[in-house]
Amino acid sequence: MNWEMFMAPYNQAVDELKVKLKGIRAQYEYGSMHSPIEFVTGRVKPIKSILAKARKRNVPYHALEEEIQDIAGLRVVCPFVDDIYTVVGMIRQREDFNILEEKDYITKKKESGYRSYHVIIEYPVETIQGVKKLLAEIQIRTLAMNFWATNEHSLNYKYSGQIPMEVKARLKKAAEAAFQLDEEMSKIRNEIQEAQAIFRNRNDSEATKDDN
Amino acid sequence: MNWEMFMAPYNQAVDELKVKLKGIRAQYEYGSMHSPIEFVTGRVKPIKSILAKARKRNVPYHALEEEIQDIAGLRVVCPFVDDIYTVVGMIRQREDFNILEEKDYITKKKESGYRSYHVIIEYPVETIQGVKKLLAEIQIRTLAMNFWATNEHSLNYKYSGQIPMEVKARLKKAAEAAFQLDEEMSKIRNEIQEAQAIFRNRNDSEATKDDN
Amino acid sequence: MNWEMFMAPYNQAVDELKVKLKGIRAQYEYGSMHSPIEFVTGRVKPIKSILAKARKRNVPYHALEEEIQDIAGLRVVCPFVDDIYTVVGMIRQREDFNILEEKDYITKKKESGYRSYHVIIEYPVETIQGVKKLLAEIQIRTLAMNFWATNEHSLNYKYSGQIPMEVKARLKKAAEAAFQLDEEMSKIRNEIQEAQAIFRNRNDSEATKDDN
Amino acid sequence: MNWEMFMAPYNQAVDELKVKLKGIRAQYEYGSMHSPIEFVTGRVKPIKSILAKARKRNVPYHALEEEIQDIAGLRVVCPFVDDIYTVVGMIRQREDFNILEEKDYITKKKESGYRSYHVIIEYPVETIQGVKKLLAEIQIRTLAMNFWATNEHSLNYKYSGQIPMEVKARLKKAAEAAFQLDEEMSKIRNEIQEAQAIFRNRNDSEATKDDN
Repeated sequence: MNWEMFMAPYNQAVDELKVKLKGIRAQYEYGSMHSPIEFVTGRVKPIKSILAKARKRNVPYHALEEEIQDIAGLRVVCPFVDDIYTVVGMIRQREDFNILEEKDYITKKKESGYRSYHVIIEYPVETIQGVKKLLAEIQIRTLAMNFWATNEHSLNYKYSGQIPMEVKARLKKAAEAAFQLDEEMSKIRNEIQEAQAIFRNRNDSEATKDDN
Repeated sequence: MNWEMFMAPYNQAVDELKVKLKGIRAQYEYGSMHSPIEFVTGRVKPIKSILAKARKRNVPYHALEEEIQDIAGLRVVCPFVDDIYTVVGMIRQREDFNILEEKDYITKKKESGYRSYHVIIEYPVETIQGVKKLLAEIQIRTLAMNFWATNEHSLNYKYSGQIPMEVKARLKKAAEAAFQLDEEMSKIRNEIQEAQAIFRNRNDSEATKDDN
Repeated sequence: MNWEMFMAPYNQAVDELKVKLKGIRAQYEYGSMHSPIEFVTGRVKPIKSILAKARKRNVPYHALEEEIQDIAGLRVVCPFVDDIYTVVGMIRQREDFNILEEKDYITKKKESGYRSYHVIIEYPVETIQGVKKLLAEIQIRTLAMNFWATNEHSLNYKYSGQIPMEVKARLKKAAEAAFQLDEEMSKIRNEIQEAQAIFRNRNDSEATKDDN
Repeated sequence: MNWEMFMAPYNQAVDELKVKLKGIRAQYEYGSMHSPIEFVTGRVKPIKSILAKARKRNVPYHALEEEIQDIAGLRVVCPFVDDIYTVVGMIRQREDFNILEEKDYITKKKESGYRSYHVIIEYPVETIQGVKKLLAEIQIRTLAMNFWATNEHSLNYKYSGQIPMEVKARLKKAAEAAFQLDEEMSKIRNEIQEAQAIFRNRNDSEATKDDN
């Protein structure tokens, strides 16, 4: 199997999707609006991780493209929890790819404490042999969720998926702290919006008075 | 007119097209093949250049998008003249944008000595207000053509389009030298291909003998 | 005053320092070691922010370079609180710039809840007129600190520095949640290190037994 | 031998030098001046090329760092021949590295037709183990020289250094065409400068008159 050739369109897809998702942020900034996106990252799954996953799930080589959905992976990190759903909404409306599946690990977090919103898409890449449709996974999370997940990931890697009980318990406590941070931040966001609403109402009524 | 908002989708289109065209080169490299693309650059036309062009051609603001075709500009630079047509062929087959017009200033160079292949495309950009189709110009040239054109451009800029006769004459001589360089280079390319053909033929016949 | 020329060396310094600080992370990864750096960002202070700060502090134009220390700003974001001090240690040992001042807002957080470690350096930039020494500020923080600070910054911007009492109180609660997250994360880090120490000790003793 | 660790500081050096040399161009642009630099590229020599060169020259592993001078390679491409010497002049004045050697293959071109100016420098890189001084090669050329050299390089690669006589002859003719292009371009540059000088003289004399 020529891995370089196999990976080439995935590399291309990640590069394109990174530019596209980062563009959303840029457009909010051009309009001087609050951006629901803090930053975007992307990566192609390393070959040995693809093979490890394939072995674990008994996926033969010829089925890698359909069975391993996260060979191309994008991550959108948002300031606030509500921003995640704004981003999901925008992703649903795009016409440059199709959504195959959505997994909401925020309303329903994983046993480990993991929270994130996953969207599996089918993305058409132009290759030198013509168009190729491939799968990609977009993970959407807050900064706090991302921070926690990054750490869980390295612990999983370290313990080869067998994190000891005490460490697991600690991780859960950290997940709660991350959740608390998101909660407190949401309150600030709400407060700002409420404050703005009050402000606008007041000014509207004054405006009305002026009109009389 | 909010110029930042006006320019935002053009910036986005240039970023996306740059990644897409650079991807062609990357794919040739993954396959260890000669790439017909040496490098790709992109730029959004500066606002004052857009306005200058609009004034010169009597284009009103509301018609800028349709009348100024090179607000989004991409440049693909190729090693050999023949590579230009390979790239044009690939651009014609893509499904992620439509070609509106092609201008071949290579077979038929401009009076000034300018040579290049231009393709005007209509490209769909996803914005936060939905899909927007906009025009972009892709210029395809050899390194020698690009070198010459870059210099002509700065002279034009320097003399505000009124290059003195003597300098114009010099520029034409330089255009001829650039053309000569392309010609000599093409001969090398041909020679390589002929040499390869001879080599392959010989080896094929030997292989045939071995089979007997 | 030619602002473009004034800003040019600061832009250059930020670009160079970004590459230098990002290089630390890359080197840890080449060595397959835990990197104390999660990511690095850099920015040059926008001109209007420089002028606003100058006005507020009564700094005349000719003294901007000495008095405004954060025209060139770098930010190093770390996974764990302890990593901050590892990074500070490395910064102190470098020979390509001098440290002028350090401010530890971690051991002694600001009234607002702000936590971060600041290092003011004097950095020599090669310009086309020769070497120029200029000031730059490096902020070192955890992800949680950074998250909080980013939000406080936008609130400050929104309320022009006059954040209402209730919002301020909320921000403080969020700062505590961020602090809790750092604390929980530190415990995991310690546990990992302790686990490693125990593991190594056991294996060492077994190794010793084997040798007998 | 841990190649990743061996290469890490070279990667770092190339990244830093690229930012530094590109910065020269940026500064000319900030000042709205003609830049003597068209573009800058950089690369770390692939490991197998290092090994091939070491074998050919009988360099043992422990001497790679001193004997192979171009593991870190930078290329500065200039519009005009004269610009090359401007760039060399600026490189000589820098204080962030030392020049060990200069090779002028422009005044004295190679037998093959190769023209370029090479500077070998000793560059101090900060690593996580402290400062490390390493060698790097900066090649300075015009666009035409670069174009030719790129093609010669791929032919050399193709024929494993044994380019056939006829192809060699063709390459030489191409080198002459590249040289002619540089010559024609130089005349334009001179003409522009003369034109400017005349223009300035006239305006100066008028200015003098006005003063009377």
